[in-house]
Amino acid sequence: MPFVRIAELEIDPASLDAFATAVKEEMSDSVRLEPGVIAIYAVAEKDRPERLHFFEIYADEAAYNAHRESPHFRKYFSTTQPMIRSRRLIDTVPIQLSAKNHSAG
Amino acid sequence: MPFVRIAELEIDPASLDAFATAVKEEMSDSVRLEPGVIAIYAVAEKDRPERLHFFEIYADEAAYNAHRESPHFRKYFSTTQPMIRSRRLIDTVPIQLSAKNHSAG
Repeated sequence: MPFVRIAELEIDPASLDAFATAVKEEMSDSVRLEPGVIAIYAVAEKDRPERLHFFEIYADEAAYNAHRESPHFRKYFSTTQPMIRSRRLIDTVPIQLSAKNHSAG
Repeated sequence: MPFVRIAELEIDPASLDAFATAVKEEMSDSVRLEPGVIAIYAVAEKDRPERLHFFEIYADEAAYNAHRESPHFRKYFSTTQPMIRSRRLIDTVPIQLSAKNHSAG
């Protein structure tokens, strides 16, 4: 079963555009360069666009740990650190991951 | 851009297994039978397994509305209604959806 990480971030509203630019690059790099990164999805709450939700699927926990050490993640992390007001990371256990193009359980 | 729905459910702990059985069937049916359902992911919080997080990707909002009217969703909804202690649905705007097998933006 893959390893799934949920993250909930609140961004400084004045930094939303800069944050989005940085995180989009990091997400693209991660999925392209890291074999163990299956998907990273980022959405904003419609009514509170400074609240972001991330849903991240890794091959396993080792792939997640490797991701946190990657140069593109490190760069993103240090660049965006001052833009983030709060961060909640949720450890999860997958129940089922159903998708048209890749189904994992 | 796809339509993404986040749902946070708290389940009666005594009903967790029955809920999981019902929702897994509904998720598989939705992805298999509905062209507009791209993915439905369900995970539990590791430390509080009665708290479930759903991340659902639809082709567009019309596909989401059609999904809510489908026979398999209706069956799931009525079966599990008594098992659900609370439900929070979050409307979202995608920032980026990056995945190995299907990339949408």
